[in-house]
Amino acid sequence: MSNSDSFNSKCRIIVDAMGGDYAPQNAVLGAVQAYEERKDFELFLIGREKEILSVLSENKVSFPKGNIIHAEDVIEMGDSKPTAAIKSKPKSSIVAGVTLVKEKKADAFISAGNTGAVMAAATLIMGRIEGIGRPTMGAPMPNTTGVCTIFDVGASVDSKPKHLLEYAIMGTIYTKEIFGIENPSVGILSVGEEESKGSEVSLAASELIKKTNLNFKGNVEGGDILKGTVNVVICDGFTGNILLKFGEAVIPLLRFKFAEYAKKGLTNLLKIAIAKSAMKVILKDFSYEEQGGVPLLGVNGICMIGHGRSTAKAIKNLVFRAEYMYKKDLIKKFESSIKQYSHL
Amino acid sequence: MSNSDSFNSKCRIIVDAMGGDYAPQNAVLGAVQAYEERKDFELFLIGREKEILSVLSENKVSFPKGNIIHAEDVIEMGDSKPTAAIKSKPKSSIVAGVTLVKEKKADAFISAGNTGAVMAAATLIMGRIEGIGRPTMGAPMPNTTGVCTIFDVGASVDSKPKHLLEYAIMGTIYTKEIFGIENPSVGILSVGEEESKGSEVSLAASELIKKTNLNFKGNVEGGDILKGTVNVVICDGFTGNILLKFGEAVIPLLRFKFAEYAKKGLTNLLKIAIAKSAMKVILKDFSYEEQGGVPLLGVNGICMIGHGRSTAKAIKNLVFRAEYMYKKDLIKKFESSIKQYSHL
Repeated sequence: MSNSDSFNSKCRIIVDAMGGDYAPQNAVLGAVQAYEERKDFELFLIGREKEILSVLSENKVSFPKGNIIHAEDVIEMGDSKPTAAIKSKPKSSIVAGVTLVKEKKADAFISAGNTGAVMAAATLIMGRIEGIGRPTMGAPMPNTTGVCTIFDVGASVDSKPKHLLEYAIMGTIYTKEIFGIENPSVGILSVGEEESKGSEVSLAASELIKKTNLNFKGNVEGGDILKGTVNVVICDGFTGNILLKFGEAVIPLLRFKFAEYAKKGLTNLLKIAIAKSAMKVILKDFSYEEQGGVPLLGVNGICMIGHGRSTAKAIKNLVFRAEYMYKKDLIKKFESSIKQYSHL
Repeated sequence: MSNSDSFNSKCRIIVDAMGGDYAPQNAVLGAVQAYEERKDFELFLIGREKEILSVLSENKVSFPKGNIIHAEDVIEMGDSKPTAAIKSKPKSSIVAGVTLVKEKKADAFISAGNTGAVMAAATLIMGRIEGIGRPTMGAPMPNTTGVCTIFDVGASVDSKPKHLLEYAIMGTIYTKEIFGIENPSVGILSVGEEESKGSEVSLAASELIKKTNLNFKGNVEGGDILKGTVNVVICDGFTGNILLKFGEAVIPLLRFKFAEYAKKGLTNLLKIAIAKSAMKVILKDFSYEEQGGVPLLGVNGICMIGHGRSTAKAIKNLVFRAEYMYKKDLIKKFESSIKQYSHL
């Protein structure tokens, strides 16, 4: 691993081989697939070397042994005390991986492991960008016009108005650079379109965002996320996380209803069979796999958090996304924009 | 209109003829259809008599003129200052209708009109049940096991822990009596299943609900609403309203995606055409029309609030629901249960 942190060099990406419900299998294969497809970045796998090598050999995949970083410990998916876990397991893949980014020995860390632990490790070890009070996770949602990104989807609860301002600033830059939307419009989630409607936090946050030169459209409602009213939706992490998980459960419920319907006779079964190939294409937009996972923005380095159930494809897409974030120099752009609004 | 408020008498229901985007047409026709189907309640239409009579005659529908209550004023759907509107329009159908329930001249008021105005009028004029700090609106959501009711979906923002306790108490009774679920399980929306996860409000509310003998299951996540994990989900009105509106936008987005897919060639078009009849049955569970609207619980009388876009069918279903709530003596059940927990 080179020690350079020059922006023009190849992005150095570390993938947590031990992260996710299907680790190390999916994490290792997804990362290697990404590398084989593109090769325009440096890739490292971190975790228990023996287990990584075993996945590689079982799947007859080659990967340079020098790019495997051994980490003895694993923070389990179900560990509900992330801060304690990262303290008690300094040799875990998550802590060791994040530390390498902190030490500028890598540019990005990707994990589908324990979300709380990845967030805590990234925040405590990489540190926050100057001026950022709370890092944020953003998720894209499908809509009629393309995509709408939501910030925050659960990096913090009890977000303060100042944090929502930070989400709006970073969300705007992320949506512009990653989704190529010029001057993205920003809305704040509320219970009505009228300016007077909202919670104490959303109303105070609106007042702050209004003072920026972001393309702020004021209040939007829950339905506007899917209608494509704005490109970026800002909300507290409690509401955003609940929305994200509700959204993820829609397709499984529809599938369940389809299956129930199909059971009710041959005609139904035939209709569903015919509709299935259509559904597959249509529902692709709703799949987390295409996006891979969510970025943790506001920390001093690129950190991507995958879904616990990440497939190899999801991991692959996370690697590409991380590389793109590096190429777009997002961290520096966040820094300068946050600085610009430091008086608010 | 009789002056009796004895529980054994027929339920006296007032329908706001002027409420909703398609009023008076849908409100009048839906109410009359309900009455013609069942006739086991007394029905009154409130609003501009001339307009009501005109809808009746245009549609060749008969309805006793004596059951039309003239109200000269209308609070508009778009009126964003509900409290001011109810003060400046005492002769509006909403204010006059709610007042009749307050005066025990009717048992239930139904309106698909301005939600804020109906809530404000019901709360200020009917008054709250003793011990209730904030009324709540509950909405049913479809899931794999039947239905899950969510409280609050927007009667108030910045709900306090004590209010969430009230939602849990009334939500339990409502779900038991209306959906026939014995000892309904209750969950509180949070960002993780672990007991330690949540916002300040959700954590404090959990502590309160734990002290009751409700069937409380602790934290649930956004996806649990659709998975059928619990029968009743409790949350602050800000989060609940955003979720409800997000949920309502899912089907229109799917329809849009289907239509887009169908445009891409004859095979696609055929597949969608065949799938359509299946979709119609499947998506019925997701339609607000079947439920009609949401109840406002915690006020001294039955008050049902319809969707602004209410069809006649939706209004009809609201009438049946109101009558059922009356039959089940819900208000008295709320009163005694709230009293039981007044020490919390």
